[in-house]
Amino acid sequence: MKELEQRILLDGRVLPGEVVKVDSFLNHQLDVAFLSKMGQAIYDRFKDQHVTKILTIEASGIAIAVLASTYFGNVPVVFAKKGASSNIGTDFYTAPVHSYTKNKDYNVIVSKRYLSEEDRVLIIDDFLAEGQAMTGMMSLCDQANATIVGLSVAIEKGFQSGGKKLREAGYNLDSLAIIESIEDEVITFRPQ
Amino acid sequence: MKELEQRILLDGRVLPGEVVKVDSFLNHQLDVAFLSKMGQAIYDRFKDQHVTKILTIEASGIAIAVLASTYFGNVPVVFAKKGASSNIGTDFYTAPVHSYTKNKDYNVIVSKRYLSEEDRVLIIDDFLAEGQAMTGMMSLCDQANATIVGLSVAIEKGFQSGGKKLREAGYNLDSLAIIESIEDEVITFRPQ
Repeated sequence: MKELEQRILLDGRVLPGEVVKVDSFLNHQLDVAFLSKMGQAIYDRFKDQHVTKILTIEASGIAIAVLASTYFGNVPVVFAKKGASSNIGTDFYTAPVHSYTKNKDYNVIVSKRYLSEEDRVLIIDDFLAEGQAMTGMMSLCDQANATIVGLSVAIEKGFQSGGKKLREAGYNLDSLAIIESIEDEVITFRPQ
Repeated sequence: MKELEQRILLDGRVLPGEVVKVDSFLNHQLDVAFLSKMGQAIYDRFKDQHVTKILTIEASGIAIAVLASTYFGNVPVVFAKKGASSNIGTDFYTAPVHSYTKNKDYNVIVSKRYLSEEDRVLIIDDFLAEGQAMTGMMSLCDQANATIVGLSVAIEKGFQSGGKKLREAGYNLDSLAIIESIEDEVITFRPQ
């Protein structure tokens, strides 16, 4: 998605450790009109997959997932929660995730009520690097015997291993923008 | 908002401790069409306030805030983060919050980049009980010298003190549904 690449170049900030901050429009302040365009681009790429549910993870995935849902006929969005919650009850699927960014382990959790074998799930997240959060959400779907019909990512760090592994495993992964490299604070995208 | 009251009676579950679970449509699984109607109701109540920014808090407030924004001409949404994040930088406003539900303390955090004295802020959250998260977000606005033009809540627990205190302090607080009491698992709403 060309507009997303341009927006990353315009508003993204590169921090040490190949961190790209896009918190002016994507994951702290939210540019709702722009995120809606991203949602439409996601719809264009997965509209033939008969999506019945969108799964994402708190907190940064929620806005994109909700706006994408409006193009998919308002299919329900379920957001996985992080860590144990005293409020969620005992009836849930859970999978361990390691965050390299925050250097800590947590669990992703979804209530069994909201993911089932009837579901054709599109998983949406804002970033894909090593793919930890994504594989955690995929495990939740597998535990529910739900069908994973697509993996949608806003920004993939193509120089990390997550995307390569998922494509080699045969998953229908689409990233709106793929960062090929970051050198001397210069971002280069993979042509798509 | 009558439809919200009806939906709470239909799909809400009352748990011990006067907890009302609405995770089938509001804060785990998201009924996007319904949340959009709630966003429209919020617009109807605050449309004259010249809102320039919506502030909410991760994670449950994000969906409502984003869908409300679509009625307010896509004004930017900023979601406050909970706890210290290694990724947010040092340039932020912060306020302490005590969660009675989870019985723990945390900080709400907003980058100074995204809240300023130019802003006329509508604060949106899913629940209001003792008002801890709300007053935390109000403190962030005060630190930024932003103008708080309204406080919008989906579900207020009217038998707890948050709403009363905020109204007595003169804030423009509007709750789409106010639970007056929960007795023997029966929910009664305050007439509005």
